[in-house]
Amino acid sequence: MWLYLAALLGLYFLHRWYQERQTVENLTEKYVFITGCSSGFGNHLARHLDARGLQVLATCTTQKGAEQLDKVTSERLKTTVLDVTSKESVAAATEWVKEQVGNKGLWGLVNNAGTGAPSAPSEWLTKDGVAKMIGVNFLGMIDMTLHMLPLVRRARGRVVNMSSIMGRLACFSVPYTASKYSVEAFSDVLRREIHPFGVRVSIIEPGSFKTPIQSNMIESYKNAWSQAPSDIKEAYGQRYFERSE
Amino acid sequence: MWLYLAALLGLYFLHRWYQERQTVENLTEKYVFITGCSSGFGNHLARHLDARGLQVLATCTTQKGAEQLDKVTSERLKTTVLDVTSKESVAAATEWVKEQVGNKGLWGLVNNAGTGAPSAPSEWLTKDGVAKMIGVNFLGMIDMTLHMLPLVRRARGRVVNMSSIMGRLACFSVPYTASKYSVEAFSDVLRREIHPFGVRVSIIEPGSFKTPIQSNMIESYKNAWSQAPSDIKEAYGQRYFERSE
Repeated sequence: MWLYLAALLGLYFLHRWYQERQTVENLTEKYVFITGCSSGFGNHLARHLDARGLQVLATCTTQKGAEQLDKVTSERLKTTVLDVTSKESVAAATEWVKEQVGNKGLWGLVNNAGTGAPSAPSEWLTKDGVAKMIGVNFLGMIDMTLHMLPLVRRARGRVVNMSSIMGRLACFSVPYTASKYSVEAFSDVLRREIHPFGVRVSIIEPGSFKTPIQSNMIESYKNAWSQAPSDIKEAYGQRYFERSE
Repeated sequence: MWLYLAALLGLYFLHRWYQERQTVENLTEKYVFITGCSSGFGNHLARHLDARGLQVLATCTTQKGAEQLDKVTSERLKTTVLDVTSKESVAAATEWVKEQVGNKGLWGLVNNAGTGAPSAPSEWLTKDGVAKMIGVNFLGMIDMTLHMLPLVRRARGRVVNMSSIMGRLACFSVPYTASKYSVEAFSDVLRREIHPFGVRVSIIEPGSFKTPIQSNMIESYKNAWSQAPSDIKEAYGQRYFERSE
């Protein structure tokens, strides 16, 4: 029996050794499109992949953000301004990507753009506030993905969607958790849908990191309380605000 | 040791017996507001609670649906027409409920209204299609709940949100699963937020039932394929459609 066990263990390590030897080749010919690169994870990823030699196509919400990223990266990395909630902006970014990648298609689509505001107890918010966050974090991702998928299919590439630990565990902020739960649902379904095309779908679920999203949320919480109507303030009370802060 | 076990078992059954003896009293004084009562679960619940003697306030999307429900229920049950995606309609329904319940508040809010269309592989759909389903199944629920919560808090009542097994497991239909994942996130967060007010939040997660939602989805799937642009039809092919049907 010990012999069998040793053989199995040997096979397992052989398999792991083989797996870890795998590296992606021809990095310099691979195009990766990343949204939300002004700051946080998107900014880090764009700089990291640029340093590794990939062809990075990075979008920022502002011209200023794009210029700052351009300054600290190589000539290879290209930037454009994108607002994922605007259909025109998404269509324009798609045309821009098509021009850049030519016949190669898109090896990677990283849907990273997102916001943390508004975040507060539900009754301090409005339907419009919730819809705004869903519009950026979820519907923006949908629009971007639907536009890019033909290019990703051509390269048999991958889609990487930025979710969050709050896409798994809903403790506070209905807008944020609902948008990230939606990202999880979208990614899980899309993975099955486009598997026949050789396209893979991954989710990233960061825990608590000091990105602008986090300060976004804290600030939004305070704003929502200070702007809450008087009947809400009376019902919830200062103590509720201070305890959940 | 056997004596301890017997005593523990005895205590357990005593506890269960006590729990199951609990019944809600004064049913005839309790107001329950249910959305989406033209058909399916909402229709069944409205008729069931009406038969049990509760004060049922039922909404339907059409006047015809409301009239049909009125015909088969008691004088107690009241109906109104509601479109959860319309802010004006939600505000009007809120005023109507306030008039009905007076000082008693709302003992139960059942967010049941929902749709199953559009449902299809993501690339056969558009951002607007996804947004439409989110607008009904999730944002409509948010709007209705935010409007009703003051009444529910007054009665130390409960909120019951209609989710689905597809709010837990995402296999197909991004719009539907994302909307139901959002319902789960919303309910889990809201439960903590309003616990201090003595309000409870429950989720219902039906599996596969032959309600209109189901036929909705199947029909929508076929429509989306027949209306898909030619490049999508070419990429996916008739076989993909038939296999997933």
